[in-house]
Amino acid sequence: MRAAIALSLRGQGRTAPNPNVGCIIVKGTVVIGRGWTQPGGRPHAEAQALAQADGLTDGATAYASLEPCFHLSPRGPRCVELIARAGIARVVIAAADPDPRTNGQSIAWLRAQGITVDTGVLADEARAAMDGFFARQTLGRPAVTLKLGLSLDGCIACGDGSSQWITSAPARHHAHVMRAHHDAILVGRGTWWADKPRLNIRLPGLEDHAPQRILLGHGAPPDGWAIIDDPTRIADIEGASRLMVEGGAQTAAAFLAADLVDTLLLYRAPIILGGGKPGVADIGLPSLDAAHGRWRLVDRRMLGVDAMEVYARARAG
Amino acid sequence: MRAAIALSLRGQGRTAPNPNVGCIIVKGTVVIGRGWTQPGGRPHAEAQALAQADGLTDGATAYASLEPCFHLSPRGPRCVELIARAGIARVVIAAADPDPRTNGQSIAWLRAQGITVDTGVLADEARAAMDGFFARQTLGRPAVTLKLGLSLDGCIACGDGSSQWITSAPARHHAHVMRAHHDAILVGRGTWWADKPRLNIRLPGLEDHAPQRILLGHGAPPDGWAIIDDPTRIADIEGASRLMVEGGAQTAAAFLAADLVDTLLLYRAPIILGGGKPGVADIGLPSLDAAHGRWRLVDRRMLGVDAMEVYARARAG
Repeated sequence: MRAAIALSLRGQGRTAPNPNVGCIIVKGTVVIGRGWTQPGGRPHAEAQALAQADGLTDGATAYASLEPCFHLSPRGPRCVELIARAGIARVVIAAADPDPRTNGQSIAWLRAQGITVDTGVLADEARAAMDGFFARQTLGRPAVTLKLGLSLDGCIACGDGSSQWITSAPARHHAHVMRAHHDAILVGRGTWWADKPRLNIRLPGLEDHAPQRILLGHGAPPDGWAIIDDPTRIADIEGASRLMVEGGAQTAAAFLAADLVDTLLLYRAPIILGGGKPGVADIGLPSLDAAHGRWRLVDRRMLGVDAMEVYARARAG
Repeated sequence: MRAAIALSLRGQGRTAPNPNVGCIIVKGTVVIGRGWTQPGGRPHAEAQALAQADGLTDGATAYASLEPCFHLSPRGPRCVELIARAGIARVVIAAADPDPRTNGQSIAWLRAQGITVDTGVLADEARAAMDGFFARQTLGRPAVTLKLGLSLDGCIACGDGSSQWITSAPARHHAHVMRAHHDAILVGRGTWWADKPRLNIRLPGLEDHAPQRILLGHGAPPDGWAIIDDPTRIADIEGASRLMVEGGAQTAAAFLAADLVDTLLLYRAPIILGGGKPGVADIGLPSLDAAHGRWRLVDRRMLGVDAMEVYARARAG
């Protein structure tokens, strides 16, 4: 299942509004098929994995990070039927599909076909890998990642405003990879005016993957951009299950104050800027106590001399 | 030698102006003596280790984190003589003693006695463990640790000034242990007025170890405190080889601007304060480029939900 979830991440940010599922087909001790939801949402992970294992699937086990789809679509066959037709003997599912058109129906239907179904295997990990889909289904909005490149003392720029660069090349490359895992990227007016960011993905092989560009502000958006006037309007961003907020400090604060940040993606450079521009403006915190218990470290690694730290929301919302 | 260096840390902050040395005596594969410089500077590590191994030292090997002392003192015997008298066959030394009264003379003297001497084993690690002594000898001032308890966004207090507590109990306990590794602790006037910090060590067994309390400011010091009016005056703090600077933001900035910080000791809480008080005030950085290449991560560990990060000076000075 860990392998299936890892595969699911390949589709992250490219399958909206579909979930980015991962699937592995195993026969005996041999992996005979691997699949993940393709860009645009089709083929589904299960269809791809089954096709790869064609002719060998009888009696095999399928590991799917999400309950296979039950609902009919003009775009392709139902995964439950493909699984049954392929002679799969056992299906292991991480998370049930919250979409009301499936939501447990596939599990019941597969069992009715005499197929063994195990559920709840690494469900939290699977939901985290498909956080955008789950946020859309359960919260009615995209999952939001707030990305900040910070000095040790929490600054995103020197006192004179210069910010190129706080972090080193390995961290900036990683941030570009993370852009590719989001359907849309948002910056505030101030950042747009100061940096005119292209928000494209400047890495070999990813040049063509351009997430939607969203401006937080008022008035007419620049060419090629969409605009929203308030963080709560992210629900209106069509075709986006994962939104990355890239700053600046006012925009970061607006999303934090609205409690609309699900993941903090911090790149921390080993520098002190002393008196520089803080990365987060006033979030209207009522007290110090209120700041605690909201974030949980889920990943950390060195990228060159910088540290990447990922914090996940540690409370409901 | 790693064991000898680890022992040397037991004396850190308690042996000034003497070095905090660690020593291990090994015969065959058995450790027969362990010693570290005792509080106040005597007995020396070698004397303690040799006493422990009494009667077994003939032909043994001594590992000392610093070249044994050569100079005569009314307070005790010269370690080189103790070593020779004990019949030690080989002495392994991490770092040569920069004190001109010894500085290589012990190494030559021991060799002249027919004792094998190896030097330079883990010298950098040994110097780091005795940083206060080396700073005094080579820079004429104490080694300075800047301690900061910070939020993810680099704040040391909420916008309303409240700062108890940013970090959790495990991190605060660790900070108290670190106080015990310094001879003196310094805060600025603002912190003194705001917090009236006791700067004692509130941990079982360490209550009696009270580092000197130093105020950065002007005028008469409070009872039980000494005062200096500028960071460059730290050289005048008698009996202190290791100084911990505990804040606030102006004091941190003053030491950083004067390039007088050797170690950054950061306790990072998983909270965002957004618009709180930055931990470091203006340090007069001429450009963003000038901030880079100055700090190197040398230790990191989790303390409860907080992260401790230790950065060492990565440039000369």
